[in-house]
Amino acid sequence: MAEPQEAAVVTMDKIVSLCRRRGFVFPSSEIYGGLGSTFDYGHYGVLAKNNIRERWFEAMVQQRDDVVALDSAIILHPRVWEASGHVEGFTDPLVDCRTCKLRFRADKLEDAQCGRKPSKHPGETPDCDLTEARQFNLMFETTVGAVQEEGSRAFLRPETAQGIFINFKNVLQLARRRPPFGIAQTGKAFRNEITPGNFLFRVREFELMEMEFFVPPAEAEEWHRYWIEERLSWHLRYGLRKSHLRVREHGPEERSHYSQGTSDIEYLYPIGWSELEGVANRGEYDLTRHTEFSGTKLEYVGPDSERYTPFVIEPAVSIERIFVAMLVDAYDEEVVAERERTVLRLHPAIAPVKAAILPLIGKSEDMASKARPLYEELRRKHFVEYDDSAAIGRRYRRQDEIGTPFAFTIDEDTLEDDTITVRDRDSLAQERIPIAGAAAWLEDALARPWTTPKADS
Amino acid sequence: MAEPQEAAVVTMDKIVSLCRRRGFVFPSSEIYGGLGSTFDYGHYGVLAKNNIRERWFEAMVQQRDDVVALDSAIILHPRVWEASGHVEGFTDPLVDCRTCKLRFRADKLEDAQCGRKPSKHPGETPDCDLTEARQFNLMFETTVGAVQEEGSRAFLRPETAQGIFINFKNVLQLARRRPPFGIAQTGKAFRNEITPGNFLFRVREFELMEMEFFVPPAEAEEWHRYWIEERLSWHLRYGLRKSHLRVREHGPEERSHYSQGTSDIEYLYPIGWSELEGVANRGEYDLTRHTEFSGTKLEYVGPDSERYTPFVIEPAVSIERIFVAMLVDAYDEEVVAERERTVLRLHPAIAPVKAAILPLIGKSEDMASKARPLYEELRRKHFVEYDDSAAIGRRYRRQDEIGTPFAFTIDEDTLEDDTITVRDRDSLAQERIPIAGAAAWLEDALARPWTTPKADS
Repeated sequence: MAEPQEAAVVTMDKIVSLCRRRGFVFPSSEIYGGLGSTFDYGHYGVLAKNNIRERWFEAMVQQRDDVVALDSAIILHPRVWEASGHVEGFTDPLVDCRTCKLRFRADKLEDAQCGRKPSKHPGETPDCDLTEARQFNLMFETTVGAVQEEGSRAFLRPETAQGIFINFKNVLQLARRRPPFGIAQTGKAFRNEITPGNFLFRVREFELMEMEFFVPPAEAEEWHRYWIEERLSWHLRYGLRKSHLRVREHGPEERSHYSQGTSDIEYLYPIGWSELEGVANRGEYDLTRHTEFSGTKLEYVGPDSERYTPFVIEPAVSIERIFVAMLVDAYDEEVVAERERTVLRLHPAIAPVKAAILPLIGKSEDMASKARPLYEELRRKHFVEYDDSAAIGRRYRRQDEIGTPFAFTIDEDTLEDDTITVRDRDSLAQERIPIAGAAAWLEDALARPWTTPKADS
Repeated sequence: MAEPQEAAVVTMDKIVSLCRRRGFVFPSSEIYGGLGSTFDYGHYGVLAKNNIRERWFEAMVQQRDDVVALDSAIILHPRVWEASGHVEGFTDPLVDCRTCKLRFRADKLEDAQCGRKPSKHPGETPDCDLTEARQFNLMFETTVGAVQEEGSRAFLRPETAQGIFINFKNVLQLARRRPPFGIAQTGKAFRNEITPGNFLFRVREFELMEMEFFVPPAEAEEWHRYWIEERLSWHLRYGLRKSHLRVREHGPEERSHYSQGTSDIEYLYPIGWSELEGVANRGEYDLTRHTEFSGTKLEYVGPDSERYTPFVIEPAVSIERIFVAMLVDAYDEEVVAERERTVLRLHPAIAPVKAAILPLIGKSEDMASKARPLYEELRRKHFVEYDDSAAIGRRYRRQDEIGTPFAFTIDEDTLEDDTITVRDRDSLAQERIPIAGAAAWLEDALARPWTTPKADS
């Protein structure tokens, strides 16, 4: 992980605290003391993650001619992971300390603390009696079926990509596509990380969004550049700041075993610049390996019998890393009319709740009789919230903190003339509109292009 | 599983064959010889499953005041499964045959075949030398972290419900809800079934949609009835036939260890009447057990300090079982104008593709210049398909088989007067509309109430 090169706008602690306070994210299994680096998502977290997934799927599949969807199993045939190189190569080097009995990553000793002298690193204390490093596989293992024999050992997938490669021939035959074309999927993946941490940044269980784009080998570099640009522009479209994004090419020594060249789209997290999304040129590695291991030829045969093994360009990102980046760039604290407010300036397409419906006087039945039908109309298409609790200022603050872009307030005037106030989360501008036009107003507002109201540095 | 009491309309073979032919579902890891009862979903399968999940989420969360969403981890703290009773009780009785070395479910011997005499059942042949039955746990086990000690043993969740119970207190505090209220989640669950089978009906890895509804104990029976009705009406709304649905109450001997009473919504699958969705009254079992095991009191304390442990009503269903049921009821073969066609009469909200855009003469650039902009407009909001291949009849048949409710055809007349033909999948009625009004026409058509065009028996 690179050192912070620029002060980040917000600390990770503030993000974690907001997530907890508003029920976006909870430490998992908390009543049992927690399970390290595992998280459960509350209501708003689920809605935000759904929005991220849907916007990705829309851009990567729905709005393209050349990409189809797939959803492969989490537990695949164990041979898949031999062919992919994961059984042999998806490992971290570990050492044990014979004195304190703890286990550390040999390549990260300077980050780890000695079990006996917690202020020291294992390499620094004379008490530490470290074993030689041995390779530890990061795949979770399990057993399928009731028989404990070798053949029933299986793995939880550490990436979704392999499920795509082994279905390449099926899709080629049935989806009427020829290279360049892609296969996209989202879903859980698992890595038995020895040093997880930094909130959602490195977790053992996460949701990947991967697309494998199959191209004629001669076009691989061009498509690699295309997908880096395409994914960058997606992140910018949904509210990440240009100055917090950069592209960094992997050096030859840090490339994965399958890679012909990888570029990371990095984001300036509060912990420093780090990977947001990887865009790799996997070459013909995977299709060739699965051809070898399965005996099924995975290649493209064209109408004039030309045949080749396509190269693969892979943009791969986890929902968790996007979620954290979006929270960081959306988080803002400001003083308005001598009052502090915390506001999440999320892109409206990402915001968990699109609008709040607020009768000014919570207990007024007259206002409720106007507000409820509006709420019931709007929730047919969108997540909206009805809140008739407490003082209006407190309700606005709650909506600001969860990032709700619009609030519709029903007041005394509504009872007279059937108009309501729309409050804009970012500008705090208020506008009066007819209640009958509120649904159409919301559709228009959500369809408008949006730019982050925070100046880019 | 009950015997078929009524002839099903379609065989499972026909469904499997259509799914394969049109790329809805593939046997998983096929190039490696497959992995028993595991499936990968192709493009249309993914879209249909997404639609099922979204309609469920919309009805169960978005359109209700009293249900919030959650997404808990797949690998929870191992104590969770001790508290839930799964470590002890989530088992099947197994026997080994000392002669043929195979393993069988002791309670399903009559369904299993002897390894040496495949026409016989293990109990029937004198060669079979069966061991005593022993209990085999259906949870997949794995190890978290690099240490192989007892504390790091973990399980893949066999249901999503427990993730909800252990977050009960978090949600109660943060979501400003009081009983009756519910917590809903969807996600993968895993069961190491010894006898999986019947296509997607019993698989080891599946996607659950569960909602735990917390109620005052005195209201439990009433809410139990409410949720049975509510879920029945959801299934009917999205196209299942009334005559293929029934509610069956579990006898005391078949209830799960936590159940105070369970009713199955059963569907007449091609294999006979069997569970589609379970609606259970779990009583206070789960909250009480987690209180005992965690030391955290999971109860509701009201504004006047009244306190009680809520009862839980749980509608739980897998996407897979809904998907198969919907395919079965949608499948139809008919002869139209002396030509056979296979058509999936799926509810438009479930159909993978909402509309096909078909230039009558695929190679006509004039037609393409009208058809492409329409396609690009429609795909901004919906999954639609552009198809300029082969003969129009073949294109219609392909769309019929994947269940596309509407087809827009661009022809010679379009070039003259900017009108297009809309073809209705079910009635085959054709209607001429202005191309500029096609997007609005589609919105209206998708918002219209829909009833299955197949007469109910």
